[in-house]
Amino acid sequence: MISSTMSRVREAVMFFVLAILSKLVSSTRPCWRLTTTSITTIDPAGEAFAYCLSWRLAVEANNLRNWRTVPTECLPFIEAYMVCGQYNQDLNFLMDQIFVYIDGLTLSYDGLDAWILDVDDTCISNLFYYRGRRFGCDPFDPVGFKSWAMKGNCPAIPAVLRLFNKLLAGGFKVFLVTGRDAVTLGQVTINNLEQQGFVGYERLIMRTASYKGLSAVVYKSEIRKRLVGQGYRIWGNVGDQWSDLQGDFIGNRTFKIPNPMYFVP
Amino acid sequence: MISSTMSRVREAVMFFVLAILSKLVSSTRPCWRLTTTSITTIDPAGEAFAYCLSWRLAVEANNLRNWRTVPTECLPFIEAYMVCGQYNQDLNFLMDQIFVYIDGLTLSYDGLDAWILDVDDTCISNLFYYRGRRFGCDPFDPVGFKSWAMKGNCPAIPAVLRLFNKLLAGGFKVFLVTGRDAVTLGQVTINNLEQQGFVGYERLIMRTASYKGLSAVVYKSEIRKRLVGQGYRIWGNVGDQWSDLQGDFIGNRTFKIPNPMYFVP
Repeated sequence: MISSTMSRVREAVMFFVLAILSKLVSSTRPCWRLTTTSITTIDPAGEAFAYCLSWRLAVEANNLRNWRTVPTECLPFIEAYMVCGQYNQDLNFLMDQIFVYIDGLTLSYDGLDAWILDVDDTCISNLFYYRGRRFGCDPFDPVGFKSWAMKGNCPAIPAVLRLFNKLLAGGFKVFLVTGRDAVTLGQVTINNLEQQGFVGYERLIMRTASYKGLSAVVYKSEIRKRLVGQGYRIWGNVGDQWSDLQGDFIGNRTFKIPNPMYFVP
Repeated sequence: MISSTMSRVREAVMFFVLAILSKLVSSTRPCWRLTTTSITTIDPAGEAFAYCLSWRLAVEANNLRNWRTVPTECLPFIEAYMVCGQYNQDLNFLMDQIFVYIDGLTLSYDGLDAWILDVDDTCISNLFYYRGRRFGCDPFDPVGFKSWAMKGNCPAIPAVLRLFNKLLAGGFKVFLVTGRDAVTLGQVTINNLEQQGFVGYERLIMRTASYKGLSAVVYKSEIRKRLVGQGYRIWGNVGDQWSDLQGDFIGNRTFKIPNPMYFVP
């Protein structure tokens, strides 16, 4: 009880701090979603902007692979993209498309209509962590990330929480499939998801010892193969990494959530 | 001889007219690649711009499928994207990535190292045709498109021609695989490609009667299956449609060229 109250206080304080930070950022940094003119302030010729648009497009179209960091000159653009509204706009647009797809499906309602969601930066956000990593301009730091994840304070991505609830209401069995390590991050991930409203999913599938060292494509293909073997029909598969959406048994439709901050092979 | 001269004159006249048109367009239409501030002239709140960025991202990330037309409110943005430089910037950026990939390969030089290129809006451009279709805001018109293609005047996409020549110089067998009908568009396509500098490819593979009615994914998978059956290793596969890059035997790496103007299932 005390622990739960403490956790809520911590959460409230964190959100307050983040709200201030966000306010600071949005008043001192370029927000090209809101005022396109402001790009010219930091990039008069528009050259870096054009380059970073190309870079981001290549990432999202799966043309760029095994990249380790965001190009440093793109920091202000990726920051603006993530913080100033276009990222949320892209997510909401994508959800509209997924909703249309769902509404057009004819399900069997036999308990085997399934949907797969990735966890990190799909259900819950690591944006606050990556802000400290210069939005991906700094290389991945496994120790730092683990200590962030151990806090269990990743906020829900509201657009995906909406999708999650629509899926449950529509009779889907929702499987959350993540590369997070089951032993070290199991309980904290369950708690984090619950606190953020992800309640009612069929199963949270995490990486166990037997999948250690496998790429995300291989590991997640194996998981999906097992589900299909159990009779599930995977209608949809949503993730922020192409490695969530490639390999075997990828599902009837895949949906790529934008993520210009890091690459998981 | 006379026919060849006539064709060159026609070509010269056409390019002159297009140059003027292009000049007119670039002086009267928003070119957000060049001046980001100009977006605010046609879209003060930036709302349509944000929406159209989301729409285009969804297209390129393969999230949006079976769409028939570009949303009308996105006409100025798609036009600006295609005409004002960002499209070319995206192509050049992509070519840099492909070149890095190629330079890292170890080939066998046994005549079986293969690469696949799509034709329409990959090797040669239909941009001038689509300008007359409001950059895809008008629905696809098969009769009109055929009559455009029959002219054989599609210009090369310079970035892809560069790639083509690098592939040849690097010892690849280049296969051009297109959904164009072999009987009606065979000779004109061969001529068009040759006039535009696509000389030295291994084979141009067009849709014959036996593949009629098949989706591009199925047809192109069949073609690639045959090539792999003949011993070819498909190192790369480049197309402007996701249907070029999905299905079976897609190749070791696929590269999606941007195309916000139409969708081929």
